[in-house]
Formats: sequence, structure tokens, C-alpha cells
Amino acid sequence: MTATTDPLSATFAALADPTRRAILARLTSGESSVTELAAPFDMTLPAVSKHLKVLERAGLIERRRKAQWRPCRLEAGPLKEAGDWIERYHQFWEQSFERLDEYLDEVQQEVRDRQGGAQRKESEGGSGR
Amino acid sequence: MTATTDPLSATFAALADPTRRAILARLTSGESSVTELAAPFDMTLPAVSKHLKVLERAGLIERRRKAQWRPCRLEAGPLKEAGDWIERYHQFWEQSFERLDEYLDEVQQEVRDRQGGAQRKESEGGSGR
Repeated sequence: MTATTDPLSATFAALADPTRRAILARLTSGESSVTELAAPFDMTLPAVSKHLKVLERAGLIERRRKAQWRPCRLEAGPLKEAGDWIERYHQFWEQSFERLDEYLDEVQQEVRDRQGGAQRKESEGGSGR
Repeated sequence: MTATTDPLSATFAALADPTRRAILARLTSGESSVTELAAPFDMTLPAVSKHLKVLERAGLIERRRKAQWRPCRLEAGPLKEAGDWIERYHQFWEQSFERLDEYLDEVQQEVRDRQGGAQRKESEGGSGR
């Protein structure tokens, strides 16, 4: 369906993995080597490199050539577009929480009505005695 | 690595496709049948149904049983968590734009320095005449 992945899809796909999200979180403290990035994970270097390639293709990290090593650096730019897309739905998630509130109100009202009905029945029963 | 997909990964994976994002955008106008959702796309109903299943598993849509049809409704709740995750990187995309600004300033300064140097050389050459 998407032979050439659009940038926004590439960003979301790159974020759809907990290891890749953890790598981005780690890079917020500064640039890092692949070995350093791999350390917290129970993963081989090639497995980590594969994740880095996905992040790099999405433009979320940059790998520079620097003497003997290739430090990775966070490039948060594409996250802005992703955040902007999600932000358009702000009012809808608020609506869904409002719907939940309304539903809870209805349930509570129903409970109160039933209790009221039960009390009326009781007092009617009392007056008839 | 992720045999059981975590909710946040499921949300981002569901968003990593332009058709699925278009379906969500369409549902902001209200609930809709699968046939109505499929109309703008050059796609078979089974192909659209497959996308709806991905969205449903991620909790981004809800499909109700309603007489003869199963209308789809947007459930924006999971987008809040995704937006919150991205929002943490706000300062970093601002930094990356600042870095770009700094780089452009440096380039402009270099150009000015060169022009200044060229002018000095010219005037030195003039005084030596």
C-alpha cells in the first residue's frame, strides 16, 4: 500500500517499538555510541544497529563520523510534525472523557432514582398502614 | 522482541499508515459505516476492514452492533498518551531549530568575515600605492 513510506508514517513506525523509544529517551542526555546505547538492553549489537537504522531513516537520529566512532544524536524535528498531527485530536479525546463522565452521571442518576423510588414505596407503604 | 505489543506501540503502529490516519480524520465528523469509510479509497472492502481491525485493536475506533450495520466511532483516548509521549521532546525539537539558526548565523558570520578580509586587503593594497 505504501511502497514509498511518507515521512509521517516513517516517524510513527519508528516510534512503534519500546526499544526505539528507550533509545530516543537515552539520547536526550546527549550523543552516545552504539555500544553505550546497547548497554541497558539484553540485545546483540546488530539488533541495536537495526533499530538505529529505522530511527535514522525516519530522521530521528543522526550518526556522525567522528574519528574512530560514530556517535548518535537525537534529531527531534520529525516529532514536531507527529505531535502536530496528534494535537488535532485534542478535542476528541476530551470529548471521549466527557462522554465517560456523562455515562457515570447517568449511572449515578439511575442509582439515585432507584433509591428514591424504593424510599417512596417505603413511605407510601407507611402511610397506607 | 514485542510478542505482546504494549498499548503505546500499538497506537503508534496504527498511526503509521496514511489510509488509517485518513479513516480517523473522516471519523472526526461522526460515526460511519465501513462502506462509507471505504468510499474515498481505491480499496476493496476487505482491505479497509483490515485497516479497521488494526485501529480497533489499538482502541482508536469502536464498532458497535446497531441493527443491520456496525458503525465505527472514533475513540481518541489512546491519542492522549501518544501525544504526551511526544510532548516530552518539545524542548529538543526547539533546540534542533535553534541549532539550525546558530549554524546559519555562523555561515553568515563567515561570509561577513571573508568580505571584511577582502575589503581590508583592498584598502591595504590602496594605502601601499
